[in-house]
Amino acid sequence: MAIDSRPETRGRLAIIAGGGMLPHHVAEAAQARGENPYIIALSNETVLDWSDFDHQFLGIGNFKSISAVFRAEGIDRVVLSGAVRRRPEWRDIKPTFKTLAKVPGVLKTLLSGGDDAVLKMAIELIEASGARVIGVQDIIPELLAQTGPLGAIEPDKDDWKDIEVAAAAAVALGRLDVGQGAVAVGGRVVALEGPEGTDAMLARVAALRTEGRISTRRRGVLVKLCKPQQDLRADLPSIGASTIEGARAAGLAGIAIEAGRALVLERSATISQATEAGIFVTGIDRAFLRDLR
Amino acid sequence: MAIDSRPETRGRLAIIAGGGMLPHHVAEAAQARGENPYIIALSNETVLDWSDFDHQFLGIGNFKSISAVFRAEGIDRVVLSGAVRRRPEWRDIKPTFKTLAKVPGVLKTLLSGGDDAVLKMAIELIEASGARVIGVQDIIPELLAQTGPLGAIEPDKDDWKDIEVAAAAAVALGRLDVGQGAVAVGGRVVALEGPEGTDAMLARVAALRTEGRISTRRRGVLVKLCKPQQDLRADLPSIGASTIEGARAAGLAGIAIEAGRALVLERSATISQATEAGIFVTGIDRAFLRDLR
Repeated sequence: MAIDSRPETRGRLAIIAGGGMLPHHVAEAAQARGENPYIIALSNETVLDWSDFDHQFLGIGNFKSISAVFRAEGIDRVVLSGAVRRRPEWRDIKPTFKTLAKVPGVLKTLLSGGDDAVLKMAIELIEASGARVIGVQDIIPELLAQTGPLGAIEPDKDDWKDIEVAAAAAVALGRLDVGQGAVAVGGRVVALEGPEGTDAMLARVAALRTEGRISTRRRGVLVKLCKPQQDLRADLPSIGASTIEGARAAGLAGIAIEAGRALVLERSATISQATEAGIFVTGIDRAFLRDLR
Repeated sequence: MAIDSRPETRGRLAIIAGGGMLPHHVAEAAQARGENPYIIALSNETVLDWSDFDHQFLGIGNFKSISAVFRAEGIDRVVLSGAVRRRPEWRDIKPTFKTLAKVPGVLKTLLSGGDDAVLKMAIELIEASGARVIGVQDIIPELLAQTGPLGAIEPDKDDWKDIEVAAAAAVALGRLDVGQGAVAVGGRVVALEGPEGTDAMLARVAALRTEGRISTRRRGVLVKLCKPQQDLRADLPSIGASTIEGARAAGLAGIAIEAGRALVLERSATISQATEAGIFVTGIDRAFLRDLR
């Protein structure tokens, strides 16, 4: 989605900040690009210090206050950024008059939708309040991985076999709206990511390795892909320092992510860290993935 | 597979015993049916006391000694029973003259095959030694789940929705030769089983619940199915006391397993334990699964 680049017609940018470091990077990068972002910091999710930015801590279900912020601050564009681990309970939902009719559907989605369904709903609710939801990549396109190795190390023939196997599993997983990541070791899928997230999945792989349930003679790869049906304005797969550390601890040879649709946080530091750990990071393109989908 | 029921023509039954309680139940049940089973207890896998049975502890890759036991004891039928967590390393492989030529293929399968591929290989190697591999169900058919509720509690409408969602995920997972189990809560898949096994997966679900990443307002179900392509003589999905306890701790409403293709260990105790915990256990039939496969 192209963003409106005429500053005189633009309102303010809001960042709805979930967990992890991503929202802070997004806020800084947006500032560097001349934006003055207003941070809606989600209570129970972000634990970062937001004092350098105009911000307010709000519950994710508090549409009423979020909508009031939009009006008071002249917000016209919203970026959703960072993980949302805790789904609001019904008692946390504070609807606006406009969103009141949608509450039964919201509750149903919160109770039984996959992450993807929940994000689609959040986007719909925000856009009903008059702001446009844009992707992190529309503000900071340089975070996106390109095709090919991002650092000095390249996958070898065995690694490509693991990439293929893990990518096929990640596609199946994404279609089920369960998660975006899979790990294959020696041509065998050994872990699929659920709501626990990538770091916890990698810790599981490290434990399986220690317990001898995975060959210690093959290294393996982590693959992260968008879900086939997901809205690209929310929850793009991302990697950063903790992913590299997790991959190292799990004994993996490298990480493959979807070119043009996955984010590399603190890119130069993350890639240096990978290279030092002997881990490749590579972007795989749609031609590679087409047959798997 | 029909077993040869003429005692006078039968040789001795061997049970290759992996981890867990299943092999001991199988050995006792076989004894109760007039067999005199010889136990090949896999080192590093079974920690049970086998002193009531003729037995020998051997490494899983030690075809040489396993084959010698077959000859010495007149073994003509073999049951593979219990989990094999540790795959042998190449240095553990002690081939016989007959299996020597197969070693390169064996090593490749051990390094990169899924569990299913490893079991198929084990069956092939055993049958090359002149014994026939039969299923646990050929010895103790009463362990198999039948269609419908096994205890007093039945799944309700929401549970059936979760069964459907988890079963579809389990089918996809099985096709990838990753695992046999999946958990859905409120219509959403929250965990897929990998080499960590069902108990560890259920512990993960319990942790997700505690951390608020899964709704506390929907209970959810565990579904365990055969992999579509698996050999039914090894590694049938099974449930027992630890599964019920894990499901209870994860807050699940119940467990659905494949009728005719899944084992319920210590059946009456397991089902009573489930009923006391308010958990249903139900067998789902192929008509239900046909559309998902």
